[in-house]
Amino acid sequence: MKIRIVNIGDELLIGQVINSNAAVMSKYLLSQGFFVDRVVVTGDTGDAIRQEIASAFAQVEAVILTGGLGPTKDDITKKVICEFFDTELVLHQPTLDFVSGWLAGRGVQMSDTNREQAMVPASAVVLPNRCGTAPGLWLEKDGKVLISLPGVPYEMDELMSLEVLPRLSAFYHPGEHYLCKTVQTIGIGESTLSDLLESWETSLPAHIGLAYLPDSGIVRLRLTGSGNDLQQLEREMDAEVEKLCSLAGAYVFAKEDLPMHQIVFKLLSQQGKTMATAESCTGGYIAHLMTSIPGSSAVFKGSVVSYANEVKENVLQVSSEHLETHGAVSREVVESMASNVRQLMQTDVAIATSGIAGPDGGSPEKPVGTVWMALATPEGVRSECFHFGNAGGRMRVVYRAAVRAYNMLRQYLQNR
Amino acid sequence: MKIRIVNIGDELLIGQVINSNAAVMSKYLLSQGFFVDRVVVTGDTGDAIRQEIASAFAQVEAVILTGGLGPTKDDITKKVICEFFDTELVLHQPTLDFVSGWLAGRGVQMSDTNREQAMVPASAVVLPNRCGTAPGLWLEKDGKVLISLPGVPYEMDELMSLEVLPRLSAFYHPGEHYLCKTVQTIGIGESTLSDLLESWETSLPAHIGLAYLPDSGIVRLRLTGSGNDLQQLEREMDAEVEKLCSLAGAYVFAKEDLPMHQIVFKLLSQQGKTMATAESCTGGYIAHLMTSIPGSSAVFKGSVVSYANEVKENVLQVSSEHLETHGAVSREVVESMASNVRQLMQTDVAIATSGIAGPDGGSPEKPVGTVWMALATPEGVRSECFHFGNAGGRMRVVYRAAVRAYNMLRQYLQNR
Repeated sequence: MKIRIVNIGDELLIGQVINSNAAVMSKYLLSQGFFVDRVVVTGDTGDAIRQEIASAFAQVEAVILTGGLGPTKDDITKKVICEFFDTELVLHQPTLDFVSGWLAGRGVQMSDTNREQAMVPASAVVLPNRCGTAPGLWLEKDGKVLISLPGVPYEMDELMSLEVLPRLSAFYHPGEHYLCKTVQTIGIGESTLSDLLESWETSLPAHIGLAYLPDSGIVRLRLTGSGNDLQQLEREMDAEVEKLCSLAGAYVFAKEDLPMHQIVFKLLSQQGKTMATAESCTGGYIAHLMTSIPGSSAVFKGSVVSYANEVKENVLQVSSEHLETHGAVSREVVESMASNVRQLMQTDVAIATSGIAGPDGGSPEKPVGTVWMALATPEGVRSECFHFGNAGGRMRVVYRAAVRAYNMLRQYLQNR
Repeated sequence: MKIRIVNIGDELLIGQVINSNAAVMSKYLLSQGFFVDRVVVTGDTGDAIRQEIASAFAQVEAVILTGGLGPTKDDITKKVICEFFDTELVLHQPTLDFVSGWLAGRGVQMSDTNREQAMVPASAVVLPNRCGTAPGLWLEKDGKVLISLPGVPYEMDELMSLEVLPRLSAFYHPGEHYLCKTVQTIGIGESTLSDLLESWETSLPAHIGLAYLPDSGIVRLRLTGSGNDLQQLEREMDAEVEKLCSLAGAYVFAKEDLPMHQIVFKLLSQQGKTMATAESCTGGYIAHLMTSIPGSSAVFKGSVVSYANEVKENVLQVSSEHLETHGAVSREVVESMASNVRQLMQTDVAIATSGIAGPDGGSPEKPVGTVWMALATPEGVRSECFHFGNAGGRMRVVYRAAVRAYNMLRQYLQNR
């Protein structure tokens, strides 16, 4: 069962907005055995939208549009849908009532443009949107389905999970099942890993595929399988995962598709431990990652982002001698940062980073991309130095450093 | 001059990776007067890639592919390109030399898979990749161009700016110019703004278009114009921007397309001022935004992420009485946080946040989405409470709170 995603919006075509909707939608669809054949991003013109709807209906079983439902003038999706389905816009009273209540709750008066959002194609099933003023739409023709959703990410997200997925499953009863398994490795490059796995990879059955997904020093290995018998497929894929792990075991750190910081969050939660961070070059990013997880307040107490050396001295009590003798990017300073923030925030563990994210600030001894990191635990403090290079800009250094810092903590928590 | 972007990779289709490359590429292309007609994301199969190349060559002037050039088995782009251009893979010695040196510098031995990266279509111009092992490719046919780039974001980025843009401009000498102007508003919803601008918008000439881009409480208004005379177009669009600002002036905070934190960074730099943050619900995100800017160490001294109340007390010296009487999410606490972190880090200004990001922790008096924020300056401290609602999850609350916190600081810096 193949589905086409069409994301509508000039803002996507000129690069003002990154198309994160497609990834969210694909994940949802895959979880129910629907495979996305293509994602097409197209502009806010009638011609482009018309053409994409027609070619999707010719090539796949269903098409999901996002965008072009807002209250402003650049939104014309509904008109094109009416043409394609040979229907016309009619007032949908429940939507009008909801929009008027929704606006009233925010102290905003109903405008003509708001009223237009309650106009829907006569033959559409309306998918109520509890988070905004534009409802989703479901239309059928020749046994195929067109779904139209608002482009606002959290409105789309809620409509996908509450309305679209259950309806799609009921409509198509997919016979074939799809499964994904992910194995994550760290500390080995894509090419070397590929050589290590070559003979196993060649021996994979035709209905199981492998892909390499390198990112921020991690290589995720994704196995995708399809079949009619879900249990048998599950067993086959588990067996392949085991073979993979026996070959790449030293580098494997997870058999689930979770970011490193979420794995650390789970370990901290299970072990009832708390953490803190002291961040220089990562500038709060390590704290941000952890606090993006719902419930993280149970394990995360806080962070001192000590960007300036005087903050390292005054707030984290790093000795000025260490800063002068060894520099901020040094074993001595980063170990003090970790130990002292652990004491300051009274946590079980703490991680600290100090490095040169660039583009400036590098030297021959400490080039851009040099990052010292330390882990403080009840057993003591240990540190490590990484060289991430200068390719890819400062955010690449920050992302890689955050992954490595969380990896130090993960190793400690897993090997206790 | 229209260009098609085709991003290749199963990881994009199943939603494991967000397609950020397309936005970066579109921005680059638009800056040189090239307009992206569509972005297509397709899988790692020969058929899909073949079909996308053929339809792009039939419909537009140039196509840029990303992905499918890596060293691993799921990469087949080069083979499909050879078929389409009726050529074959040959060894490119400079690439082989570069790859072998690049690997040697990392202490990695050359493997067969690495060697394959130096194989390129015989009729291709090789675009050297200084950040990785897969070079870019440039091929011409019937006055049209196919460009193939690696999918790794920073490799693609460098190749786009150093190789692709100059070559495209030289090849096409675009006669028509494109210009974008952005005006940003805060504190007004998309619908209300649209009603306010309606008569002006209707009077816009045909070659100038308007789009509304709402995000995190900000509505960006994007004017896009095209014409043969660049100077005249510039004048026309500046005049329209002035008309727009005279209508929506009270809500306009910027006439450039920069994120709020970058506007604050520029103001701090110009005024030679330093800042610090004390963050509870935003969890380090405000610090992360500022430290993502190269050169931010000149204005940003640090942050205390006081997620736990004891960190508010012990590190930020918030009185336990205030915490008990008013709760952590209160005017009293957030004002103490801002004043005390300003003093602790000895900065000119400081911002602080304390709120309920959700999904848990809300109450009837302080529902999820309630965020207090404060600004401390030499003139004193002031605070404000926002209600961002619970739709969209905790990250939406964090993003909106960060924008509003920076907006408080922006208003202070601009009105001095």
